[in-house]
Amino acid sequence: MSLEHLDPWGHAMVRDYERLFKTFGIKPFKPLLSRIRNPMHLMRRGVVFGHRDYESVLDALENGDRPAIVTGFMPSGRFHFGHKMIADQLIYYQRLGFELFVPLADAEAYAVRKIPRSMVVDYALNQYVANLIALGLEKRHLHIYFQTNYEVPYYRLLQMSSRRVTGNEMEAIYGSLEPGKIVAALTQVADILHPQLEYFGGYRHVLVPVGVDQDPHIRLTRDIADRMSEIKLTRPASTYHRFMTGLDGGKMSSSRPDYAIFLDDPVEDAVRKLRRALTGGRPTVEEQRKLGGEPEKCTVYEFYLYHLVLDDAKLLELYRRCREGEMLCGECKRIASEMLASWLREHHRRLEKARDRVLEYVEPPSF
Amino acid sequence: MSLEHLDPWGHAMVRDYERLFKTFGIKPFKPLLSRIRNPMHLMRRGVVFGHRDYESVLDALENGDRPAIVTGFMPSGRFHFGHKMIADQLIYYQRLGFELFVPLADAEAYAVRKIPRSMVVDYALNQYVANLIALGLEKRHLHIYFQTNYEVPYYRLLQMSSRRVTGNEMEAIYGSLEPGKIVAALTQVADILHPQLEYFGGYRHVLVPVGVDQDPHIRLTRDIADRMSEIKLTRPASTYHRFMTGLDGGKMSSSRPDYAIFLDDPVEDAVRKLRRALTGGRPTVEEQRKLGGEPEKCTVYEFYLYHLVLDDAKLLELYRRCREGEMLCGECKRIASEMLASWLREHHRRLEKARDRVLEYVEPPSF
Repeated sequence: MSLEHLDPWGHAMVRDYERLFKTFGIKPFKPLLSRIRNPMHLMRRGVVFGHRDYESVLDALENGDRPAIVTGFMPSGRFHFGHKMIADQLIYYQRLGFELFVPLADAEAYAVRKIPRSMVVDYALNQYVANLIALGLEKRHLHIYFQTNYEVPYYRLLQMSSRRVTGNEMEAIYGSLEPGKIVAALTQVADILHPQLEYFGGYRHVLVPVGVDQDPHIRLTRDIADRMSEIKLTRPASTYHRFMTGLDGGKMSSSRPDYAIFLDDPVEDAVRKLRRALTGGRPTVEEQRKLGGEPEKCTVYEFYLYHLVLDDAKLLELYRRCREGEMLCGECKRIASEMLASWLREHHRRLEKARDRVLEYVEPPSF
Repeated sequence: MSLEHLDPWGHAMVRDYERLFKTFGIKPFKPLLSRIRNPMHLMRRGVVFGHRDYESVLDALENGDRPAIVTGFMPSGRFHFGHKMIADQLIYYQRLGFELFVPLADAEAYAVRKIPRSMVVDYALNQYVANLIALGLEKRHLHIYFQTNYEVPYYRLLQMSSRRVTGNEMEAIYGSLEPGKIVAALTQVADILHPQLEYFGGYRHVLVPVGVDQDPHIRLTRDIADRMSEIKLTRPASTYHRFMTGLDGGKMSSSRPDYAIFLDDPVEDAVRKLRRALTGGRPTVEEQRKLGGEPEKCTVYEFYLYHLVLDDAKLLELYRRCREGEMLCGECKRIASEMLASWLREHHRRLEKARDRVLEYVEPPSF
């Protein structure tokens, strides 16, 4: 078979997400790639597949402006490879000189997810911040903060936003009007808009890299930016990424620990999970030799694509060997396990050091 | 006629508000008077007519604790004599050594009343704070603040409160679930509860003197205090006052400027309004000489009762002379006008000086 008509990344995704382009006005990211100097692997491979107004960010860069990035984390559990994918985007932008604003959504974890405060703070520091540091997040160009322990103008923006949205709009997005959800949503609006305030640096170009499930928040926030007549705000831009699949083909989530690999999983646990992962293999060896595997359906291949193989040529070779039936799932899982084990061993060393530096990065709330 | 069976203050009120005692568990204030060392005129005269848990405040005082007071102002217009009645209570408590927390509800004025930010801040500083200073509010034992420009733990309390109340409870109180109202209500909860946080002094006994229309907020806040399992909070106590009547017998409100007297009204304007005020006079002079006037229905008598005559014996004499038909409305209005003019002239002198000191008391928000 020829590889020419295949796309080793993203074509499954395009099928899934086509509707978003048509219905919601999200634009495909791929046509922008040629304008981006060093697109990261998640961009090249179609994991980042859509955007709103990314052109404005590129224009800003070309004009010598420093855009800002906002992406938050919900500290409601342990940090897994799905979170790493977001962290990688943050670190990529930080290295390009973008200013990062990273909310730790402890207010939301407490009020909406109903997780005890002490657990939320512990997850935030020892899972999220520690892993971000271990992954290479630096202190320069960085504002990482707890939603409950930030600066007063941020809260003022939350309060003022409450005037610029109706209960009906909230209900359309959240399906309920519980006070916890409303306050959490407006806090998220403040997260996204506050870098534009002079107090925080007056960043006119703000980019929010998120999962596509977050687009309703983005639309709401863009509307509120338009409506806030007292403060000059521009609409934030956004990118949308695919999500990593859980190792059973379902959702990857901290609440399903058997099907997610956490960055502090003991190496042998992580490898054991990967060995059991759902692949794109055929029912029999014979069929697989004949038809080839289906990497697009394979959760192990996803680990290569998102995390383990950053060199496109190497990834393409793995893709080809699977597709052509040359490499079967057993061999592939051995290769992936070795890569994963080696990566995790190094990461655990960094993580141990990072834990001591957490409080250099962020001040936890006093209650 | 004998005055013995009459009560020159409060008996009309008791009839009006009896239902509150029965239905909502508000207790009458009068039985507490004997336990209060120097009850102010608004207490003695039944303007402050009801309470929740005031005994706990008296107990705290007897145990040598310093309780705290919270009462806010909505800076949505000019400061009138209805506001002065609340200011007088604050100043009374401040002189007794209570710690005062005085929110300027600019977040609510902006988000719910939809008043432009710049007007809200201007009203707050040049109407509310200036008049409070002119009336004698001191800087000691005082935390006066804009809701949008306070301290981070206050906002944390707002965020955390959002978990402890349902949409149904909010709707029962506010009749709608607009985000602006929800955030304003939770901000009010934070206003009332925050003095209990260690950060703000850890005041375990907080008293909220309010109009009885605010009781739903008080009940909500007391419930939230009970439910907040992470932070030890006690239920706030409250007192309830009658409202001053507008000069036409309707509501006294900044939005009906002909029927309210503002503390910065030119003296001649104020007197002109008072001269036209609705009284408890009879249809004819003959009837009034025979039956006497009805001070309970008289808006001029209210000015004596609330503001102009602090000496109970003098007030009683005015009451008697009206009741017995000895003093008719013309004479009474002359007396009241002179008192009002004299009071306002002195107040305007103080107010002019106070305007220069506003920023010593409170820091306005930067936007």
